[in-house]
Formats: sequence, structure tokens, C-alpha cells
Amino acid sequence: MNNGRPSFNQYMSSISDRVATELTHVLPGAWDVPDSLRESMTYSLMAGGKRLRPLLVVAACEAGGGSAEAAIPVACAVEMVHTYSLIHDDLPAMDNDDFRRGKPTNHKVFGEATAILAGDALLTHAFYMVVQSARKFGVPAERVLSIVEDLAEYAGPRGMVGGQVADMEGEQGITKLEELEYIHLHKTSDLIMFSLIAGGRVAGCSERQIEALRAFGQRIGLAFQIQDDILDLIGDEAKLGKSTQSDVKQQKVTYPYFIGLQASRLEVGRLTDEAKTLIKEAGLEAPDRLLEIADFLMSRDH
Amino acid sequence: MNNGRPSFNQYMSSISDRVATELTHVLPGAWDVPDSLRESMTYSLMAGGKRLRPLLVVAACEAGGGSAEAAIPVACAVEMVHTYSLIHDDLPAMDNDDFRRGKPTNHKVFGEATAILAGDALLTHAFYMVVQSARKFGVPAERVLSIVEDLAEYAGPRGMVGGQVADMEGEQGITKLEELEYIHLHKTSDLIMFSLIAGGRVAGCSERQIEALRAFGQRIGLAFQIQDDILDLIGDEAKLGKSTQSDVKQQKVTYPYFIGLQASRLEVGRLTDEAKTLIKEAGLEAPDRLLEIADFLMSRDH
Repeated sequence: MNNGRPSFNQYMSSISDRVATELTHVLPGAWDVPDSLRESMTYSLMAGGKRLRPLLVVAACEAGGGSAEAAIPVACAVEMVHTYSLIHDDLPAMDNDDFRRGKPTNHKVFGEATAILAGDALLTHAFYMVVQSARKFGVPAERVLSIVEDLAEYAGPRGMVGGQVADMEGEQGITKLEELEYIHLHKTSDLIMFSLIAGGRVAGCSERQIEALRAFGQRIGLAFQIQDDILDLIGDEAKLGKSTQSDVKQQKVTYPYFIGLQASRLEVGRLTDEAKTLIKEAGLEAPDRLLEIADFLMSRDH
Repeated sequence: MNNGRPSFNQYMSSISDRVATELTHVLPGAWDVPDSLRESMTYSLMAGGKRLRPLLVVAACEAGGGSAEAAIPVACAVEMVHTYSLIHDDLPAMDNDDFRRGKPTNHKVFGEATAILAGDALLTHAFYMVVQSARKFGVPAERVLSIVEDLAEYAGPRGMVGGQVADMEGEQGITKLEELEYIHLHKTSDLIMFSLIAGGRVAGCSERQIEALRAFGQRIGLAFQIQDDILDLIGDEAKLGKSTQSDVKQQKVTYPYFIGLQASRLEVGRLTDEAKTLIKEAGLEAPDRLLEIADFLMSRDH
């Protein structure tokens, strides 16, 4: 019995559904744009995926006492940025992947040129979406401007793009754990941190709370990535929807490679505990969903 | 005698120099980013070029009674967006160009993957720059938010990226002048319109004035592109710094192709006159530089 409070799984699906619905509305459906661009953007944006980042935006906003509604435009924005990064990552010049989530990658369907431009379009349109939180839900301009600044920072050269460059170059041989941490921090955690901070800003959190959300995101982002490394090594291929041991085959260095499987598992637990403590002490109005997310990420098997 | 008022050429160079200086300061010089990313971004951003779009931002801001200073962050932003679009346009999957402005293109120097990511980084960082007009010069948040929204609109799927997709697909055969106009409007004019509108917003122009700046930009943008087509056909290779008749050789359709050389020239003149009339009637504080820019673009030989 939980007095009608939706379970975590229900909560997660309901946000994922809302974001998916909203994304179909904000996509350039009725716009005067070339069909191929519209189709290419839609293809990758609606390809499914966990919608983890939108969940973080909404959960952080609600934790800070804000409404889920007002967080939806920013939740869509972060999913657009995440999607663009996947499209560009998959390109022949980058990881040269033919499949993602069991479907042909964007450039395999639409060609390289359109895939590059669809990524550019999604990245650009993400900033448009952020502004809509002011236009449609009256989030104060000053807060929205900070979200724009954060998105540019965490997704830009000092953030996600920097991590991607380091990852690409690292394929020629990472020798230190710190290099791997730089890549994980920027390639994965930065957008996770942004999602939490942005949700907090929509809600009007204090700077102290924003800092706690950032630190929470940094911990769960790293734990998430280590868990990914572990699952790649020992996960269930059917659940993951992709073949395991790809890191070993591609000779990619991972956490288990550096510190071993058991220590990697302990590190995931340690980071999760640290994240939860930080959030509990932040004085947020309703931190429960964030705590559930931390546990969920640690125990996931796909 | 002009009472010490700098000539148009002096005005233009002084803004170009200021923007170049500012760009070296805002580039990720001291940042903790991979060297290759920093070098690749810098290479294309500092490759010269006319700095036309920054000039438009500053001139529009001054026309509306604002200070050149406050317009500089947005001027840098638009140059970053313009530069990213050139880097991605030149890629093998797109126009596959080996040279730009007499120098090897970004991907020829840094490789395709880094070139794609440098473009992504410049586009993302442009939004960071826009926000700095609020942070450093106190431009009101509401105005800056509108500039962010406009940049996403004019550079995004409904704007520049849409034009680029149409251009790419048009290479398989444009048969109507309207198709060519769609491409020119979005691929070239949109960013020119944005520059003028954004400058006006920094200055705090009225919506009526913003609309006049937009209409002015639409006219001079199209005139600029037709002039480009004309110069490609009959220009002086030494002045242009590139070989002429490339459109003919690539069988690209152009204005002269559709309506003839003489009619194209008349159209440039007509659009320029229309643009100037619109600006004169907009009630701007100091429209003179904008009028000079319109004349300069019409009469340029490179």
C-alpha cells in the first residue's frame, strides 16, 4: 500500500510517455522544411531509448517544488541534445555504427549529409525548446537564461563535445584511469548534471540546492557509466538488446579493466550512496524520486 | 571633410578587428579541452573572411542607439554559427571542398571526426556567447532570451539548416526559381536577418523597428547572394581569391541562369533600394551605417 502514490516504474513510464507525446508536437511536423530533414530528425528522436535525461529534468524540478509541466520543454531539449550526440557519434567518421537500439543508424537510412544536418538541427532546436519554458509556462527569463548558459556549457567544448573528442582520441590508447574519468565525466555525466541543474532552475531552487543537484548528477553519472562497463562485460544480451563484450572486442579500456569487476561494483555502490546522501541533505521539498532514480540506475540490468 | 567621422572602410575594419580580438579571448584558450578541438575551432574561426555578420550586428545595434560594446558577444556568436556552417558544408559527405579562402578546409587539416565536433562545439558555444551580453553588459534577460530564440529559429531546421538540406538536394536538379529562392533565403539570408534583428534587440529597438531590420536583412541577403552568383560568372579571380565559373562547371543553377545577367544586376539594385527605403522609414536613431552597408554589398567585386 502506498496511498495511491505511483510506483517508480509507473512514474518513469508516465514521464517517458509525456515527453514522447510532447516531442511529436514540437517536431517540425507542419513546418516548411525539407521532408528528409523532418523525417531524419523524427526517426532518431522517436527511436525509443530510456528517456533518462528528461526523467532527471522532471524529477529535479518536482524535487524542488516545481511542476512537471513547466519542466517538459527543457526535458524535450535535453533529449534533442542527447539524440544529436548519438547521431553524430554513429557517423562513419566517428564510431561508424550501423545499428543503434536494434535499428539502422540515422546515416544508414538517410545518408551521411542528412544525418549530420539532422544532428545540427536537433542541437539548434534544443535551445529553442529551452526558451519555450519561459514563453509557455512563465518561467522567469533570468532562470531560463541560466539554463541556456548551462546547456551551452555542459554540452559544448568544455563539456560533452570535449568528452567526445577525448574519447575518440583515447581509442588510440588510454593508459590512465584519470583519462577514462575525464571522458566519462564529460561524455556522459555532463548532460546528466545539466538535466538535474536545469530541472532545479525551472523550480527556482537556491544556488545551494543547485550545487547539490550538480554533485548528485556527477556521482550518478559516473556510476551509470561504470555500470554500463560492467553490463558490457557480464550483462544479458537479450535484456541489453545489444551484444556484450564489445568493449573487450574493440579493446576499449573500461573501469573493470583498470580496477577489476568487484571493485567496479563496489564503486557503483559507493557513488550511489554518496549521491543519495548529498540529495538528502540539500533541503529539497520532495527528494524521494531522485533517491529512487539513484537506486534504479545502480540496480539496472540493461 | 566629414568632421572626423570614420570612413565606411575604417568603420568596417575597426569592427572586424574588435571582433577578431574578442574571438581570441573567448576561444577556449585556457580551457581544459583536448588540444585538437581547441586548434580546430580556432583554425576556422580565425581564417579571416569578411566578418559581415558581426558588422551587421554592431551596425544594427548602433542604428538603434545601442553601444557597439554590448553587441560584441552576439557578434562573436553569429560568427561562430557562420563558421560552424562552413566547416560542416565543406565535409566530404556534403560539398567535399578541400580549400576555403585559399586554405585547406578544416577536415583536411584535422580529420573529419574533429571537424564535425569542432562545428558542433562552435554552434553550442555561440549560445553561451549570446548569454554573455546579459552577464557582461547588462542587456536585460528578456531581450537576450529573444535573441536566443531567434538564433535557434534562424539557424535551425526552419532556417539555415533547412536551407542547407534543400541546397544539397537541389544539386540533383532545381527547376524553379522559387526553389532557388527558398535555398538562398534560408541558407544565406536567415543568418543575415538574425544578425540585424539581434543587434536591434541588444539596443532595445521597438518591434516595428525589429520588423524593419528583418525586412532590410531579407532584401540585402538576397541581393548579396545574387551578387555572389554574378561574381562567380564574371568576377575577377584574383580579387575573389577563388576560381570563377565554378557554378557553371558544377552545373549549379543560379539567378543569372534563370533570369539572365542583366536582369540579375537590376534585381540586386532593386532589392538594395527597397532595403534602404525600409530602413530610412523605420525611425531608427542612426541608420547611416546600415545604408552604407547596403550600398557596399551591392557594389562589391569580391
